[in-house]
Amino acid sequence: MIEFEHINDAVISPILQQLYSKSPLVHCMTNDVVQTFTANVLLALNCSPAMVIEPEEAEQFAAIANSLLINVGTLTTDRQQAMKRAVHSANTAEKPWVLDPVAVGALTFRTRFCHELLGLKPAAIRGNASEIMALAGNSLGGRGVDSLNSTNDALPAAKSLAKQANTIVAISGEIDYVTDGKRTIAIAGGDILMTRVVGTGCALSAVVAASCALSGDRLQHVATACALMKQAGETATQRCRGTGSFIHEFLDALYQLNP
Amino acid sequence: MIEFEHINDAVISPILQQLYSKSPLVHCMTNDVVQTFTANVLLALNCSPAMVIEPEEAEQFAAIANSLLINVGTLTTDRQQAMKRAVHSANTAEKPWVLDPVAVGALTFRTRFCHELLGLKPAAIRGNASEIMALAGNSLGGRGVDSLNSTNDALPAAKSLAKQANTIVAISGEIDYVTDGKRTIAIAGGDILMTRVVGTGCALSAVVAASCALSGDRLQHVATACALMKQAGETATQRCRGTGSFIHEFLDALYQLNP
Amino acid sequence: MIEFEHINDAVISPILQQLYSKSPLVHCMTNDVVQTFTANVLLALNCSPAMVIEPEEAEQFAAIANSLLINVGTLTTDRQQAMKRAVHSANTAEKPWVLDPVAVGALTFRTRFCHELLGLKPAAIRGNASEIMALAGNSLGGRGVDSLNSTNDALPAAKSLAKQANTIVAISGEIDYVTDGKRTIAIAGGDILMTRVVGTGCALSAVVAASCALSGDRLQHVATACALMKQAGETATQRCRGTGSFIHEFLDALYQLNP
Repeated sequence: MIEFEHINDAVISPILQQLYSKSPLVHCMTNDVVQTFTANVLLALNCSPAMVIEPEEAEQFAAIANSLLINVGTLTTDRQQAMKRAVHSANTAEKPWVLDPVAVGALTFRTRFCHELLGLKPAAIRGNASEIMALAGNSLGGRGVDSLNSTNDALPAAKSLAKQANTIVAISGEIDYVTDGKRTIAIAGGDILMTRVVGTGCALSAVVAASCALSGDRLQHVATACALMKQAGETATQRCRGTGSFIHEFLDALYQLNP
Repeated sequence: MIEFEHINDAVISPILQQLYSKSPLVHCMTNDVVQTFTANVLLALNCSPAMVIEPEEAEQFAAIANSLLINVGTLTTDRQQAMKRAVHSANTAEKPWVLDPVAVGALTFRTRFCHELLGLKPAAIRGNASEIMALAGNSLGGRGVDSLNSTNDALPAAKSLAKQANTIVAISGEIDYVTDGKRTIAIAGGDILMTRVVGTGCALSAVVAASCALSGDRLQHVATACALMKQAGETATQRCRGTGSFIHEFLDALYQLNP
Repeated sequence: MIEFEHINDAVISPILQQLYSKSPLVHCMTNDVVQTFTANVLLALNCSPAMVIEPEEAEQFAAIANSLLINVGTLTTDRQQAMKRAVHSANTAEKPWVLDPVAVGALTFRTRFCHELLGLKPAAIRGNASEIMALAGNSLGGRGVDSLNSTNDALPAAKSLAKQANTIVAISGEIDYVTDGKRTIAIAGGDILMTRVVGTGCALSAVVAASCALSGDRLQHVATACALMKQAGETATQRCRGTGSFIHEFLDALYQLNP
């Protein structure tokens, strides 16, 4: 029998409070499509985003920021070099970094790079089911950026990946799972509409990076990041009339979480 | 006497249904300014966007996706190389690709590149009147990204371009024309407000790319893409209080087309 | 005793009218995060944005456009080369160009570049207090892209920078100051919420670039750009329910300024 931990407002509330008061400066090296939305999601939660991509600057800034996000969505050779320098710099400065392995498995170039990054001690990895299974070596990836698997399917892969890379793995889907290979937290909620606007997953990875800058139980922090986004997704779904109004209702809902 | 075909709901409705059920995976190589909006427009129509730009990956992905969009809005030397590899790969895999020749004519570098691409069998070309005239060699282009000509002025150029490149040409404006050089479909509607937010034209080109992945009468499919965007533009204009609310009303209107 | 000029509707109104009727074509070389918002802000004010970044094209286009914006937010080595060619071309064609020194001081690479640009006769410089102080050599910069200083603290640095580079300096904050080193205009208003969405400062710099394309008293034009954005920020704050709806209310408010 598999058992999961659950989180509730008693867990979430003080973590959200810590997020607001610390206001982590998150160095986002993310894809070209989601930069604005990612920045606005972090700002809605009173965090401070900064996108710095030139190799020399990325190395310098990763040591200054509170945490680093690596998202391979629109990876290029140049960006890859900058990302590696940033990751090494973050590790030297003991700043946590988070990997979002967008579309890993389907594309050779980024798959090679993500496997290389696995050895560089990510604090957390956040992806959809197909991505996590591909990264763990259990599948060939999804359809473009979309998952073809459920998070239940991917949970064994997530646990083995977490153990192998000594990290926390978050799988996003109808139910999110956050696991370190031993403990697993399940987070229900959200809405399918979240997959009909671009960037909710990528922005979640940025919030995961922000949460990794907090002190305390990191597994709960990452799970809280997932829970906050699911809550905002539910609220936005109730209030919107389509995917356009979903976007601003989602940001408003995050903003209104203000403790 | 020039005569045009027209399209109506009886034509549009089954094409929209096919678009929803097939949910084409569209490989978008587009400019930096419109990536988010383009992705959200495709998602609102239940299509699946993916932006992949590294040369090796772009080549690999163009063979996987259902169609490819090439938009030269923020062309660079690197991106040009990646685009060429993607186009050749799409052609080899018999996947349709669409050209959006943003600001062609006014700028030498992209004009040279667009002329080179004309020989590589685009399934469709979508631009404003000045762009289509410049691409056909009949003018020097518009003012930046804006058209200085009406689509009526550009129709002869569009027809000759369609014949010359053996493709479909769509000209956007007060009246859109979609032509293969012999048949021409005219699409009225839309609103001038569509030119006061960035990316409606570029996003239309992505929907044209999605429509080219469907089976049937491609001329009608491309005209349907134009008609859907004009319909959403009209609805959004009625509902909005300015260009900010236009953006989400436009996405909502597209989403509400759900058959 | 320090005295400031103030601006009011009698000053702003004819400048806004000129902006609308001239509809400046603004060549924006800006960072990856704010491109869409910047374009939509300019379009809301009936200006015409164009993002052109390839070195050869940037050089060609800077001579065509009415003004040029250089924003170093996501500077890279390639972009730096293109920016330098664009600035030289703008100077040769006697087109004004504006510098937005995002996060200068904190990062060595862009600091070196911004200091180099200071010698190339910018028509105006727009930044937050920490950026202006860092550029003037008075501080080490802010926290990422955020200011750690008030605009009052930065005013002496702004004046000395304006004199040194023979330019106009605009400092954004609770009170904006626009100075040429002798005259200083103070602009109150706006709202702290403007710092909780990404790109309001960067977009202001684009409006400053548009305003520099007008004929007349440039100090008043730049101050008007600041005032318009503060007005829209106030209106949006009153109408929004969070940072998501702030974004479209802000664009709507700018659009509704239509003279």
